[in-house]
Amino acid sequence: MASCLITGCSRGLGLELTKQLSSQPAFRTIFATARTLTPELEKVVDSSHGRVNYVSLDVQKEDSIAAAVLEVTQILGAGNGLDLLINNAGIQILEQNGITGLHALTESFDVNVIAVHNVSVGFLPLLSSSQQKKLVTITSELGSITNTAIFSTAPFPSYKVSKAAVNMLMAQYAMELGPKGFTVFAINPGWLSTDMGGSQANLEPVVGARQVVEIIQKATPADNGSFRQIYVEGWEVYDGKNIPW
Amino acid sequence: MASCLITGCSRGLGLELTKQLSSQPAFRTIFATARTLTPELEKVVDSSHGRVNYVSLDVQKEDSIAAAVLEVTQILGAGNGLDLLINNAGIQILEQNGITGLHALTESFDVNVIAVHNVSVGFLPLLSSSQQKKLVTITSELGSITNTAIFSTAPFPSYKVSKAAVNMLMAQYAMELGPKGFTVFAINPGWLSTDMGGSQANLEPVVGARQVVEIIQKATPADNGSFRQIYVEGWEVYDGKNIPW
Repeated sequence: MASCLITGCSRGLGLELTKQLSSQPAFRTIFATARTLTPELEKVVDSSHGRVNYVSLDVQKEDSIAAAVLEVTQILGAGNGLDLLINNAGIQILEQNGITGLHALTESFDVNVIAVHNVSVGFLPLLSSSQQKKLVTITSELGSITNTAIFSTAPFPSYKVSKAAVNMLMAQYAMELGPKGFTVFAINPGWLSTDMGGSQANLEPVVGARQVVEIIQKATPADNGSFRQIYVEGWEVYDGKNIPW
Repeated sequence: MASCLITGCSRGLGLELTKQLSSQPAFRTIFATARTLTPELEKVVDSSHGRVNYVSLDVQKEDSIAAAVLEVTQILGAGNGLDLLINNAGIQILEQNGITGLHALTESFDVNVIAVHNVSVGFLPLLSSSQQKKLVTITSELGSITNTAIFSTAPFPSYKVSKAAVNMLMAQYAMELGPKGFTVFAINPGWLSTDMGGSQANLEPVVGARQVVEIIQKATPADNGSFRQIYVEGWEVYDGKNIPW
């Protein structure tokens, strides 16, 4: 049975992914990480019969990453790797003055790109010694440069730049780690009615999370290096295919 | 007759672009910017019969950008805009320990993305009041996420991430400024034997610069939002077409 770690679990998609993974018999040990243990996350931990472990992690702090890696290593026990890492933590800053008026490039890049790199590198030794070796990053179709015109009215220019950047980061991870048995890919979870997505969103978080979990579970090395779209019946945009970069 | 400004002109492609643009009758006023006036650039300025103006500019410093905008505005004179801005300044840091061992994400992003944004925003009012309204960023085919596999052995992972990011930045500039009469695009100048490209490169700087100048001069609003490849006879890769993102 597999182990997994998710970042950004205090709320939203991360919280929902934790709930759903903890209900999957295939996953024995789940590490739900966040800067703070929110009441919502605590409830999931408490009702998990010991399967969900809360681990304190601030993805922007290298010493916090090192401490989390140590804690996870100890809980897994000698010789046991981490099968799946889901880089879910991220920020989306509203910028209503257009691309020329953006103001959050540095902040978006720090959280959505550099922190993803640091967390991935930190857990790489544990992933390397696992059976499944899956490294998945929650990104966004708003990061598709090809589809810029489709999302031109979405007022998140720095977010879009950071998601294109992390897509390129993950594409390079896939190139390097694929030959070592890894499956690395980026996935768009859909526009979800979380705090990030807002109330006008297309889908309930539970729907997006269910799809993300299903795609991850079915993923094979053939998916290495891809940019996956979720599949939701009745939604033309969520066709389950690869999104063009 | 047109005016243009180029960043990063102390050497390499920027120096060569300055030389070639100064030999084009279509350009009356050329602003060659750099942190310092190198002897090579000084020679170009001195032999230009007053057409090439050296303007001190450190693209990473906002006060330096503001001072350069003021100086250029004064030289152009009341009512005259800047027809063409070429964002050429950039860095490419060698990282020989693979994608997981990269160390230059922040530095690459600061120079290759944030500085490009700040310079573009600074000169936007002057560009807006010009005839041609051309905003061109020198990027790289190494920033093509689609073509990651082709360039997987090029040891510049942070550079690649930063170029994918600036491509997304420029795609969004194009979406916003296109309807206002701008032509915004990214261009790959080819692998050139500059200090950046090294001695094993495919092309002499003069060849890449000639192509960049030709593509810019022929560019129409139809090129807005594109990612252009240069055309060089005898080189299959330099086919003059659009590069996939």
